[in-house]
Order: sequence, then C-alpha cells, then structure tokens
Amino acid sequence: MTPEVLLARAAWSRLTEPGDTVAGALVRALGPVDALAWLREVAGPDAVVDGVLVAPAPHLGDAQRRLAAAVRRWAVRLTDLDPTRDLEALAGLGGTLVVPEDPRWPHGQHALGAAAPLALWVRGEPDLAAALSRSVAVIGARACTAYGEHVAAEIAAGLVPSGIAVLSGGAYGIDAVAHRGALAADGRTVAVLAGGVDRAYPAGNVRLFSRIVADGGSVVSEVPPGGVPSRGRFLQRNRLIAAGARATVVVEAAWRSGALNTAATAARLLRPVGAVPGPVTSAASAGCHRLLRDGAATCVTGADEVLELVGRAGEGLPPERAPVPREVDGLSDTQRRTLDALPVRRPARPEALSRVAGLAPGEVEAALGVLELRGLARRGGDGWCRRRPGGTGVGAGHHA
Amino acid sequence: MTPEVLLARAAWSRLTEPGDTVAGALVRALGPVDALAWLREVAGPDAVVDGVLVAPAPHLGDAQRRLAAAVRRWAVRLTDLDPTRDLEALAGLGGTLVVPEDPRWPHGQHALGAAAPLALWVRGEPDLAAALSRSVAVIGARACTAYGEHVAAEIAAGLVPSGIAVLSGGAYGIDAVAHRGALAADGRTVAVLAGGVDRAYPAGNVRLFSRIVADGGSVVSEVPPGGVPSRGRFLQRNRLIAAGARATVVVEAAWRSGALNTAATAARLLRPVGAVPGPVTSAASAGCHRLLRDGAATCVTGADEVLELVGRAGEGLPPERAPVPREVDGLSDTQRRTLDALPVRRPARPEALSRVAGLAPGEVEAALGVLELRGLARRGGDGWCRRRPGGTGVGAGHHA
Repeated sequence: MTPEVLLARAAWSRLTEPGDTVAGALVRALGPVDALAWLREVAGPDAVVDGVLVAPAPHLGDAQRRLAAAVRRWAVRLTDLDPTRDLEALAGLGGTLVVPEDPRWPHGQHALGAAAPLALWVRGEPDLAAALSRSVAVIGARACTAYGEHVAAEIAAGLVPSGIAVLSGGAYGIDAVAHRGALAADGRTVAVLAGGVDRAYPAGNVRLFSRIVADGGSVVSEVPPGGVPSRGRFLQRNRLIAAGARATVVVEAAWRSGALNTAATAARLLRPVGAVPGPVTSAASAGCHRLLRDGAATCVTGADEVLELVGRAGEGLPPERAPVPREVDGLSDTQRRTLDALPVRRPARPEALSRVAGLAPGEVEAALGVLELRGLARRGGDGWCRRRPGGTGVGAGHHA
Repeated sequence: MTPEVLLARAAWSRLTEPGDTVAGALVRALGPVDALAWLREVAGPDAVVDGVLVAPAPHLGDAQRRLAAAVRRWAVRLTDLDPTRDLEALAGLGGTLVVPEDPRWPHGQHALGAAAPLALWVRGEPDLAAALSRSVAVIGARACTAYGEHVAAEIAAGLVPSGIAVLSGGAYGIDAVAHRGALAADGRTVAVLAGGVDRAYPAGNVRLFSRIVADGGSVVSEVPPGGVPSRGRFLQRNRLIAAGARATVVVEAAWRSGALNTAATAARLLRPVGAVPGPVTSAASAGCHRLLRDGAATCVTGADEVLELVGRAGEGLPPERAPVPREVDGLSDTQRRTLDALPVRRPARPEALSRVAGLAPGEVEAALGVLELRGLARRGGDGWCRRRPGGTGVGAGHHA
C-alpha cells in the first residue's frame, strides 16, 4: 500500500457519495490511482457530449452506461478536491484512513462488490479486520422501549465473553444501548456513522463516541471529515453494518424502520439475521415480528442464541483473512486471456495476440485498451508487450 | 349408521383408552360391530396362551403383534360393559354420540389414522363437521400472564367475524380466555375435554362449559360419561385438538408445556401452527419462542395473521366433507382382489378364486379369513361366495 493509493482512495471517498457502484467498478478496474488519473484526464467540459462520454473509457460491464453521468457528477467535486487536507484533518483527530489494500481492512465489506466502501475513515482502533472478524451487529429503533433497552444491553454484554465485537450505528435508542452494553462488559464495540467521524451525530452521543475510542473500539465512516449525515448516507451506512458483521440482530424496530433495511441487506449478503420478539401489543416490536413472520430472521431471545447464529455463520468458513487485491482482479475473462498472451519483452502485433489468445481482433483491441489504462500493457513499435504496474515492462510473473 | 354401530362404538370407547391404535386398526378392519363380536368370541380366559393369541384373528399389519396384549387389556373391561347405560347417561345430559359413520363426524380426525377417536361424546351442538370445518385451535398455558389473556381474547374474538370456530381444551388460563373471547363475540367455540363431558374439569370452568353449550357450541370428549381426566388422557386429548382444527395457535406456553405437544401433533399432521411472541423476559412466552426458533411455527401477532394461516391451509383443499367408511375400507390389495373374485350366488372353490384373482392359494385363504370375519364372505359347501355385511349373501354390487 503506497501513499498514492491512500491519497487516491481519500480522493475517491470525497468525490463520491456512499454506495456509488460506478466508482466502485471503475476503481476496481483501474485501481484507485489510475482511475483518478483517468478521471482528471476526461473530466474536462468537453468529455461528455449529449450525455455520451466521448473520451476513451475502460470497460465496466453493467456500470458502463452510467459512466458518463458519473463523470459529470464526480467532476463537480474535482475542483475543490484536497485529499491531503482531509487526511490531515483525520490525523488531527488521531484517526486512520483504512483502505482495501491495507490488511486491516474489514474482510466482510468485500461482499458488497462494487458497492463496497472506497475507504473507511476511522477514529480509535484502526485494525477493523481484527475487530470485525468476530462481530455481531446489534441494532434497532431510536424510539425504543425500556424492554428493548434491557434486552439490547443484555445481549451486547452477553456477547463480550465470547470475544464478539458489537457493531452498531451510534444512534439514540437500541444502537447506543448496544454500544454501552459492550463497553460495560469491557468489550470491543464499533460505531459506523453516516456523517464524518469528526461530527458527533447525534450530538447527545458525543461522550459515548469518545468512550468507544478511549476503550479500544472504533468510530468509522466512509465519508471524509466534515461530511454531513444526510438521509441517503444513513441508508448507505446501513449496508456497512450489515456487511461488517458476521450476523445482525434486530432488537426492536417499528413496522417501517431503518433497522429492517439493514436486516434486509444482511440477508441479501447471506449473513444470518436474528430478531428479538416482544409483546405483540408493542409497536416497537412490530418490525421484529415482521422479520420473523416473513422467515427473514431467526427468533433470538438472548446472547446464547445470538452466538448460535454466529456459530452457524462461521461453520465451514476459511479463517478470516482480507484478500489483497491482485493486479488481475476486476479483469474480464477476455482481458485476462489477452494479458496472458502478451509477451514479456518483444512486442507482438495484435494479429499474433489474437491467435495466441484465441480471441477476435476486436476483442483483443478492446482488452489492450483496458490493460494499457491499468498499466499492465504497453505499446512497443507496432506491437504490444506486458508491463508490470508501475514497473518497467519486464517480468510480470505468472497470472493464474 | 345403525343403532348397532352406535352401541358398538360406545362400547369400544369404554373398552379402550384414548389413542389405542390397535383398537383403531381392528375397528377399521372389521367395522365396530364385527370387531366387538370378534372380541367377545376370543376374549375368554383361553384366548391368549403365553402372550400369543391362539384364536383366529384378522390381519392388522403393524398392529398385529400387539393384538394379544390388547385383547387381554380390553377383556378386563368387557364384563362391566354396558354401552346402553353410557348412552342413556349422555342422553340425560342432552348429549349425542357422534361416530365416524355419522355425517356430523369432524373430518379432520381422519388424519389421525388408527389413532383417530372411536367415537365422540358431545354435549351441545352435535354437528362437529360444520363447526370444525373452519376452526382454529387457540391454546396455551394455564399459568398465563395478563398479556397472554389479552392477546388470546383478542385473537379468539377477532376470528369470529370470519366464521371461524375457536377450538380449545377448556383448561384454566389461555384455553378459557379463548373460549370466552369467542363467546363474547357471539362466535362458536368447542371445548375438548380429557375426562367425561359430565365431569366439569376443571371445576372452576363449570359455568363456562354450560355457557358454551347454551350458546350453540359443543363440549366434547372421547371418553364416556364418568371418565376421569387422567394425565394420559390429557396428552391424548391434545391430538384431538390438533387434528380437529384447520390451524393451531399457541398464545403463551412455558418451555415445557402441553400446548407444545399439541403444536407438535398439528405440525406432524401438516396443519399450520402459529405462535404468538411475547417479551423474552417472560417465561410464559418461552415455549412460543422455542416454536418460532425451531421453525415449527409461524409468528402471528393478531387475528388477521391467524386467518392467513387458515387461508393457506385451505388453499387447494377440496371442500370439507366427511368420507363415509365403505365396506372395502381397510382391506389390503389382496383382500380386495379376493373379494372381487367372489361369486355372488354359487360358491367357488379356493383354487378357482385363486385363478380368477391371480393370487397364490395361501394368499386367497388368508384373505378369505378376513373377509369372513368382516362379514363380506361366507362358506357354502366346499367353496365361498360373497355376503353383504349383515345381509343375505345376495347382490354385493360393484366394489371399486
């Protein structure tokens, strides 16, 4: 992980809104540094004509047709972009930017695919991989009842002896009680905020966030310092909680509740979801009963039953380990085959590559464009040869 | 349905304990009248030698090896048997004996197979077929909470406008509240008791039972008047509730509870089961949460969701109708083929029957024994011919 990668990811975090899958696809295809360089190149006023991107562009599959609109969207923020300033602001809070190239990146976020966060701004403990490898999201309504508070605190505290970190959203109500329950039991807890980690939102939880940081936990956001917690960011924040935890437990939720959104995302990611039942006469439990009724959640009545959820989730899984992105990640099959066909030293003409790769000439040409953008191929005379990313073009090794 | 059938079933009800599957198989194989005649014939002191039934016996499949023990068991009660007296006692209560040969027999009990009740002693409305064709069992703990009482009453009353009868066990707690909730909404309710319908058990519910009878409902038992509600009869009573209702809803139940036994039976009969959630801090809801957690029940929070259970149960079902037992019911394939081969008038020798039926001589001989016991075949000279049950041996019609 180089400083350029860190700066580029900080920049992408600032340029985009959370959950921008076009940015996710672009950064995955080109890497954050080259993606940013490409954007700077094409983001001039003439890049998009009548909604069509006239500059050369990498192939992004499904995201392709949304690329022109995305470029215009990103370009608006490109002028004021200053990732160094953002990183300094974070450092001023004692914080750390954690990126997918960092082994401390939380493994679970990869499940979001192109919607995975581009970077995480962290106050407190930066090793999210360690914190979240065994974690449960305990979430629920802001407008909770004394019953919900009691159960949330019991569950959160009850998970600690098993080495489970409690993940939640730092909101009033169930979220705050869950964080406090873990802290009271000397456990680790992680709060994922919708706004910047410098903005304590909600304000009433400022001391809670400070205590989380002081007690070895983490306060996390995917938006840079200063970012306001908008409605859209709240909904996107929920996906980070669902993806971050091994399992998600909803303690209390009204019939329509953000917690149900988180639960639905967790279920979509095939993570176990638990719901705590309550009195059918309590509106604060209606969302939990809805999950149970729809078969979208397992009934859990205490920490021991939550642990069973995590146990089931962990069965048969390889040990948690953050996969380091490889240079071939994000390449299509055609692009990989073209890459494999490229000679290391003496350039080969496209017709020769086409024969070796078993691809049509048009396919090889399109693939070479992407490989060049990603720094994996370079022109030499009227042919092409391999180039190590950032390297000299000699010796790229074996690509599986 | 003849008076003989009624008397014979009253007798079988007195001779057996609820859930006696050997009696069920025997009565199914021979019909109640012939089964009783057979028992009287073989129940002498010499019938069973060293645990082996030495008298000729019908073939009862799985129940066969338990027949000798059953005969000795039944014989004990044979001496005091007086079904006429039992029926008079019932008539004195204004009651009716409802038997499977009666169109008022509740269809659902057939699902119990050989464990189906042999007869039902009914106070109040005898048409159980009409009452239970659309019914829901609302059951639960005796030691219920005010919360459980509230929800049970709401659900029971909420089912009435849809023409649903509320079935329950007449016990204190949830059962009584469910009956009262249906009555309060001018609905029909049926109480299934573990003891005789003349014994109001529990005593505190005497007035409730009177009101059920007065308001067009029914108080039902499979044991004759005077029968005590023993522990074994309570457990067996639960199967009648599970089989009688289209769906079963458990409102409150402790971790170990008779209501869970009823729910398990309903599930085994493929009837939908609902469980009402409650506070996880309430021991009275632990059994309900257990059902939800095990996936053995659907979460239901009100009458509307219970109606969905019934709706689902009713989908694709033919209209409810009690199948009338036919003379060929309970016959094996071999026995049916032998019956079909029997000439109506002129007796045929076994060798000839063997040829016509396409069966081995031994198979035909065994089948003839059963058919004779059931009154479907009679000897004539050195051959066999058909005999209408209770008839003259002429004209048995077509057997499909």
